[in-house]
Amino acid sequence: MLDWFLMKDVNLGIVGLGNVGGGTLTILAENAEEISRKLGFRLNVTAVCSRSAKSKTLPAGCTPALITTDWREVVAHPDVEIVAELVGGTGVAREIVEGAIAAGKSVVTANKELIALDGAAIWKKAAAKGVTLAMEASVCGGIPIHAVLREGIAGDRIETLFGILNGTSNYILTEIEQHGSDFAAVLAEAQRLGYAEADPSADIDGFDARSKLALLTSLAFGARLTPADIHTEGIRRIAPTDFEYARQLGCTIKLLCSARRAQGGLFVSVRPALLPRKTIMASVQGAYNAVWSRGTFGADTFYYGRGAGPNPTGVAVVSDLMRLAREVRPTAAHRVPPFAFTELTETRPLPIGEQKRPWYLRFRITDRPGIIRDLSSILAAHSISIDAVLQLPDLDKHNLPFVITLETSPEAAVRQAVEKMNSLEFMVEPPLAMPIERGI
Amino acid sequence: MLDWFLMKDVNLGIVGLGNVGGGTLTILAENAEEISRKLGFRLNVTAVCSRSAKSKTLPAGCTPALITTDWREVVAHPDVEIVAELVGGTGVAREIVEGAIAAGKSVVTANKELIALDGAAIWKKAAAKGVTLAMEASVCGGIPIHAVLREGIAGDRIETLFGILNGTSNYILTEIEQHGSDFAAVLAEAQRLGYAEADPSADIDGFDARSKLALLTSLAFGARLTPADIHTEGIRRIAPTDFEYARQLGCTIKLLCSARRAQGGLFVSVRPALLPRKTIMASVQGAYNAVWSRGTFGADTFYYGRGAGPNPTGVAVVSDLMRLAREVRPTAAHRVPPFAFTELTETRPLPIGEQKRPWYLRFRITDRPGIIRDLSSILAAHSISIDAVLQLPDLDKHNLPFVITLETSPEAAVRQAVEKMNSLEFMVEPPLAMPIERGI
Repeated sequence: MLDWFLMKDVNLGIVGLGNVGGGTLTILAENAEEISRKLGFRLNVTAVCSRSAKSKTLPAGCTPALITTDWREVVAHPDVEIVAELVGGTGVAREIVEGAIAAGKSVVTANKELIALDGAAIWKKAAAKGVTLAMEASVCGGIPIHAVLREGIAGDRIETLFGILNGTSNYILTEIEQHGSDFAAVLAEAQRLGYAEADPSADIDGFDARSKLALLTSLAFGARLTPADIHTEGIRRIAPTDFEYARQLGCTIKLLCSARRAQGGLFVSVRPALLPRKTIMASVQGAYNAVWSRGTFGADTFYYGRGAGPNPTGVAVVSDLMRLAREVRPTAAHRVPPFAFTELTETRPLPIGEQKRPWYLRFRITDRPGIIRDLSSILAAHSISIDAVLQLPDLDKHNLPFVITLETSPEAAVRQAVEKMNSLEFMVEPPLAMPIERGI
Repeated sequence: MLDWFLMKDVNLGIVGLGNVGGGTLTILAENAEEISRKLGFRLNVTAVCSRSAKSKTLPAGCTPALITTDWREVVAHPDVEIVAELVGGTGVAREIVEGAIAAGKSVVTANKELIALDGAAIWKKAAAKGVTLAMEASVCGGIPIHAVLREGIAGDRIETLFGILNGTSNYILTEIEQHGSDFAAVLAEAQRLGYAEADPSADIDGFDARSKLALLTSLAFGARLTPADIHTEGIRRIAPTDFEYARQLGCTIKLLCSARRAQGGLFVSVRPALLPRKTIMASVQGAYNAVWSRGTFGADTFYYGRGAGPNPTGVAVVSDLMRLAREVRPTAAHRVPPFAFTELTETRPLPIGEQKRPWYLRFRITDRPGIIRDLSSILAAHSISIDAVLQLPDLDKHNLPFVITLETSPEAAVRQAVEKMNSLEFMVEPPLAMPIERGI
């Protein structure tokens, strides 16, 4: 086999340029360099189909050979090796997916409805044609939960799976909890802001979450469920007073999807439930999704991220495209490199002194007048701004701990100031400096 | 190609029967059915090497053709197709890994030291021989963070990666925070309990975390770092008073590993830092590990699980073995099925009425004497025990919300009781019943 063939680009056909299709094209264009550093070859967008193809603005660097309003032209295009179906629904989307498989092309789809309805049968057709079906984007947009359940923890046997799978209902519950507003008022505001649909039933009555749970139950337990068989309750009746009582019980309230092994089968449900506030699942706020799993061997693992959005969902589609692209010419050179990238760049970290952070400085001192003056003079001389001075009640004037927090400052300046401070005669021990990391 | 070949089992050689090797054999034996439901074929343990091979008790169902104290016999065994190196260290482990690759066999390793030291060069040798190197178990035992970074979110471009990568130091910090004990006392207790080593430096001075961060930085950024170049501070100086001040600032303190893109390179460090208590990273308690990543496109994702332990780490090894087993005969029939299992089982959920949970019942009533008597009579008649009765201060006697929590009870009985309660004349609206989910 020749090298030029091994390194040949893989050509994609993208059908559907809505939110997910747009995010996918954006990532393929803007992240092309990182993607080819990982693959060892490039992903080309060869053909694109959109109902209003002419009017769409493609991202810079995206110059497909074919732009069409007829998906059949994308599927039939001789250069297209993988088709992404990003249309949604169960009508034409099914024709696209099955058409691509019939043409011997692997398919990536973000289509929860189609897969929940008929994914197993579609996969059989793909397997019979020797191609692959990938669907990471169909559940929990930004969380790679398919990759995790399918491969990452494949060796385990899942006992219990819990999920917060609908961002809209989680956002509404979070708002009720934080502001004590009524359900109806929060829903109306969410609709005004575009976070909830004009017809919100799919989100707030649990039907969207139910489809996703059916899919995850397949991945986790190898069980095919009819979504309508899943016990489902929504959040319409949750009131601010329920959060007050839940708090008294040390709990919060979430729309919880669950599937648990029990004697003779699985308990599966979507319903509001109380969760202890100290659990990691309780900390999932707003529009985020999360999945918690307990395995017989690996015990607890937890996965969290954006449930939706063009770019998070686009990451799922592009990651699937990369996986399938490696299979298009399955040679050793195309195997997934264990370090994710085909080549690692020898790297020295940047000098840590250049890093800027807000800081926490804790002192132990022998108390006397003028301490703050002396310390603040040193900080000012290094152009460092004080954020706050804190002192807890403490009786030992000879070993008094207190804290100064600093506004965002370069580490080198802070280190120099701390060293100067350390030579002050009232210091009992060297000051302790730690960065403050916000927004993790 | 013949069907019998497609479905032929894949034969493994396991070298090393310490904690991780023991966990791996246990899972291969006890989880064999689930594993073959996913693969479509079986993984056979064909050869096993242990320094004290004769004395080891193998799990029931594990009957290797060869048990030896000489790893060379495992690597050279003609039936062995994949070798798992679970010895650790950088001496004989390297010989095993390189010997297996030279023999044209793919390798799974749990060896953080060897991979951090020389993984990229070993991978080059494997690629040249057309075999694969897999190392999920080398970092964050039970969290499939390699699978996530290598494939799950491969389409993204990581901007920032934060990790809590050392369970021992996280356990010590959690204990200091929760009990207000001094560092030295907590460390001594952790050593007594076996959670910390007699020489605790690798854990508490950040060196173990540093090696893991170097590895994750390769996977996330394609950067090869020398661990010694990473700015590293340990937790010896963190005192209870620091947690008190941190709490005043709305924060906790964690030994935080971080790698962040900045102009011209990466800032990389291991050090104690303040984290806002409301962040999901702050909720990581005790011996758990966690990784938080922010990508240019997919934004925030978070991964959490056991950092170590024979079984969680064994899940990582077995999941890698399954992945490599599919590559041993890379035909379409061996591709990873999108639903994780080769066949889904048609499943109806168990009747939800049979599920037993503790319950939250919230009522809105018109107040009058005898309410608790009437409700508790109905519950008693259904053999349901009351856990607590809660009533927040409220003035509206005509629409008074109050709550009864129930001990673990079958859902059908609770539903029947709630229906009876709903016909009581003082009910303003139907009672709201929610399960209480503990321990997620």
